Amino acid sequence: MVEMTQYLLARPHQLIPLTTFAQRYGAAKSSISEDLGIIKEVFEEEGTGELQTLAGAAGGVRYIPKMGKEQALDFVDRLCVKLSEPERILPGGYLYMSDLLGLPGFMQEAGKLFATAFAGKDIDCVMTVETKGIPLAYATGAELNLPVVLVRRDHQVTEGSAVSINYVSGSHKSLHTMTLSRRALKEKSKVLIVDDFMKAGGTIQGMVDLLAEFNATVAGVGVLVESGEVESGQRLLQDYISLATLTAVDAKEKEISVAPGNYFS
Amino acid sequence: MVEMTQYLLARPHQLIPLTTFAQRYGAAKSSISEDLGIIKEVFEEEGTGELQTLAGAAGGVRYIPKMGKEQALDFVDRLCVKLSEPERILPGGYLYMSDLLGLPGFMQEAGKLFATAFAGKDIDCVMTVETKGIPLAYATGAELNLPVVLVRRDHQVTEGSAVSINYVSGSHKSLHTMTLSRRALKEKSKVLIVDDFMKAGGTIQGMVDLLAEFNATVAGVGVLVESGEVESGQRLLQDYISLATLTAVDAKEKEISVAPGNYFS
Repeated sequence: MVEMTQYLLARPHQLIPLTTFAQRYGAAKSSISEDLGIIKEVFEEEGTGELQTLAGAAGGVRYIPKMGKEQALDFVDRLCVKLSEPERILPGGYLYMSDLLGLPGFMQEAGKLFATAFAGKDIDCVMTVETKGIPLAYATGAELNLPVVLVRRDHQVTEGSAVSINYVSGSHKSLHTMTLSRRALKEKSKVLIVDDFMKAGGTIQGMVDLLAEFNATVAGVGVLVESGEVESGQRLLQDYISLATLTAVDAKEKEISVAPGNYFS
Repeated sequence: MVEMTQYLLARPHQLIPLTTFAQRYGAAKSSISEDLGIIKEVFEEEGTGELQTLAGAAGGVRYIPKMGKEQALDFVDRLCVKLSEPERILPGGYLYMSDLLGLPGFMQEAGKLFATAFAGKDIDCVMTVETKGIPLAYATGAELNLPVVLVRRDHQVTEGSAVSINYVSGSHKSLHTMTLSRRALKEKSKVLIVDDFMKAGGTIQGMVDLLAEFNATVAGVGVLVESGEVESGQRLLQDYISLATLTAVDAKEKEISVAPGNYFS
């Protein structure tokens, strides 16, 4: 049972035929099924996730990581508390977040939350643009068992032929370039876009435009923190999930206000 | 037992007092100890890792992820086979690896291997320079329960005050800059450096030089792939672990030769 638990946990969103377990442990399928029933119960109780069982010859069991409500609220509470620390304020009203983004365990929780939010969607890969969104994209990809596609700012020799587009960063109103290797994304892919921060949404809109060049489509957009200081008319993007909202940064008074994101409302 | 297994797996390198389990399950410490004994046996048999038990009032149990020899050899076999695919050759003899680096599960295996190699070392954090080494650094940090510190190429407004150094990239003999936020690294930290590729080692030497600016020290260096086409006199770095060695890239004949890295010799 210990071994089945760890086997399942290491393989999220993968269909495992019961015969795999039966062969590994030399046990009858009926006793495997019984054990899976117990594991399923514990996973559901603890808010670890779901165990889906599919009957029939092509059937088996699939572990779907899902963060329970209680854990999700606990996570977002910790996120908001940490983001509100006044020493995060940088010149220009920017917020230092690299320490949080540097905690693999914290990113795994955020990734699991995105995996919960987008579990029902048909997705081929997770995409982000370098650099700060990368840990979040990998954490999400790990929980969904999906590859991660990295958009670069510059064209690199190690990426082969690539498609470049220009985009307007909403917050700076300045023009930037982003580049994606031709090999990195299959035509017609369904893509989940993930990033660490969104203000007006110019960078994410850039990724959406880049996807069009690959005949690919957006399956969803998830951001860790969104800026609430954007008027809704200015927002380039309407359909997205945020885990936290930065409602105000007062550099003078050294005060930061953070609230749970739209995922929780 | 299912719950204890997943609790431990989710908390590598963390000391968990037995009272935590006793309270969670309302069970006696003696029966907790018995269950831990079974879990320990399964983890060792399956090459998942070790369970260290510390006696005494400050004692408890700690899960140390370790990849067994068999799994390590299986991983490096798959790595070598994939890296040898001729369609990876890019103009200039470069190798396309972004697809492999984009597989979270594959990176987790590599990270676990690094965590195995450096399990006994006293390390405060894992460091890499953007971009391609990032997934590897996070995977390693996750298994070692350590934060990840990201060196940037340019100074970003979102990083606060930063230290910049110039370094010579060995393979191009060209001068580059790398930058690390002052807040990102505590003085005197012991740092594990991780990267996806090393030729002469100029980039990694740059990180070593950057560490000196923070009075920090190198606890180890791990690279996924090293180029074997460097004469040993040219190599700037002697003490490192590599998982695979690229022995030859023949762009004309479209042939790539890859062998297991120095970790396996």
